[in-house]
Amino acid sequence: MNDTSVRTVFFISDGTGITSETLGHSLLAQFPDARFRQVRIPFVDDLDKAIDCANQIRDAAVRDGLRPIVFSTLVNPETVAGLRQADALFIDLFEKFIGPLEAELGQRSTHAVGRFHGIADSMDYKNRIEAINFAMAHDDGVSHDGELTEADVILVGVSRSGKTPTSLYLAMQFGVKAANYPLIPEDFERNKLPGELHVHRAKLFGLTIAPERLSQIRQERRPNSRYASLENCRYEIEAAQKLMRRENIRWLDSTTKSIEEISATILQAVRLNRPAY
Amino acid sequence: MNDTSVRTVFFISDGTGITSETLGHSLLAQFPDARFRQVRIPFVDDLDKAIDCANQIRDAAVRDGLRPIVFSTLVNPETVAGLRQADALFIDLFEKFIGPLEAELGQRSTHAVGRFHGIADSMDYKNRIEAINFAMAHDDGVSHDGELTEADVILVGVSRSGKTPTSLYLAMQFGVKAANYPLIPEDFERNKLPGELHVHRAKLFGLTIAPERLSQIRQERRPNSRYASLENCRYEIEAAQKLMRRENIRWLDSTTKSIEEISATILQAVRLNRPAY
Repeated sequence: MNDTSVRTVFFISDGTGITSETLGHSLLAQFPDARFRQVRIPFVDDLDKAIDCANQIRDAAVRDGLRPIVFSTLVNPETVAGLRQADALFIDLFEKFIGPLEAELGQRSTHAVGRFHGIADSMDYKNRIEAINFAMAHDDGVSHDGELTEADVILVGVSRSGKTPTSLYLAMQFGVKAANYPLIPEDFERNKLPGELHVHRAKLFGLTIAPERLSQIRQERRPNSRYASLENCRYEIEAAQKLMRRENIRWLDSTTKSIEEISATILQAVRLNRPAY
Repeated sequence: MNDTSVRTVFFISDGTGITSETLGHSLLAQFPDARFRQVRIPFVDDLDKAIDCANQIRDAAVRDGLRPIVFSTLVNPETVAGLRQADALFIDLFEKFIGPLEAELGQRSTHAVGRFHGIADSMDYKNRIEAINFAMAHDDGVSHDGELTEADVILVGVSRSGKTPTSLYLAMQFGVKAANYPLIPEDFERNKLPGELHVHRAKLFGLTIAPERLSQIRQERRPNSRYASLENCRYEIEAAQKLMRRENIRWLDSTTKSIEEISATILQAVRLNRPAY
């Protein structure tokens, strides 16, 4: 067996496949030297589709000369049996964990197909969509009288420090209403927060970033501008940090962090305990 | 044991906790009648933090009178041991699956803490951030000459049919560049697509929605407006579907679907096979 070969990994689900993919990515990330080709097959909700998957798994095994890995979250025993006609390493979420949960809860699981079935109507889902609309409507300092009162958190930082993607992630993953507000040269000259943020001080969370990285990001947007110059980025970052220290705003450095990490950190810092079920 | 009691569920991770939460939600969704209080504890990356978690688990057990459920993705054996000092039903992703993967791949896992460590620098992550910026810049028909050429998919549909959250989800979860373009009364009068969409016809995907639901959503935005009236929503939806049929655009009904389901369906329909590792 050749260690540098590419092995095919399947993410198979009767729903969107997002759970099996999240699970699979987390586990595969523990093997950074292995090379994988990924195939996502969602909505496998009957025997025919399961058998089609089994055929694809067999084909991949022949092509790669390696047994595929299959992350699966199928719950219907018949489709599971169809899928298992192929030879593969099956990593099966429901098989391993539903039994212990049924025993602990003293209830049978519904074996409901598709994680998100019915979820579009739930409160949790409605909150997430509302939070996405809120983030879109309050991006980049856009706000109307009194609306920031609705915000769970308000991100502040210089242009391109990561506020927008973080606001959207907070909304989409956690249903958290996040506005964001740029800190601009006028704020630094006055060394004061924009007026309307003062009353919401408890909700503020700052993002900062290394000047070199900021300059790189801004260069892609506006090459050779003063806005993107390392000198200006250094000035803005220093002034923003000074302002945030002065105003006692919690902040973190986004330079080497993903929006997932930034969002989880903010959630922990502002202690938003949101009921999800 | 009282079936209507609330049981505490912990999502514990040495990283963001997103994997353990996704896993947990998928499994708990199989028990719609059980009631859970959820506690998310990310960044549990040393023994002290693990012992603090164990204490919180014990407290919850006493308060609820029920053994808590713990979804965990800790990889460090020492922190795992600290956590296990409490009594709970542990659903441990790494414990169950890392062994079989190591055997299959013929490699030891790195036991690297935190799924997203290092990912902020990866191509995959860069694509996702770029796609989010693209979706923001091409929301609601905003586009500049030639930029739609870059789009992987262009969503079309009437105002509030779900285009914006779907575009953002496609970007954030899959790194897919999705623009979106509203179909408006002028398009229906001409019964033609907006001019610049014609050349990108192969990338178009339509969203439709039940007029009753659309009217409800629009009422929240602009109560008692003509825009939100059921009569107008019926007209717009009918005209949009007629236009999409005429132009041979694939479409789906978003009424009872989550953005996860809509996105997975679109991805499958347009067969975007994106290399992720």
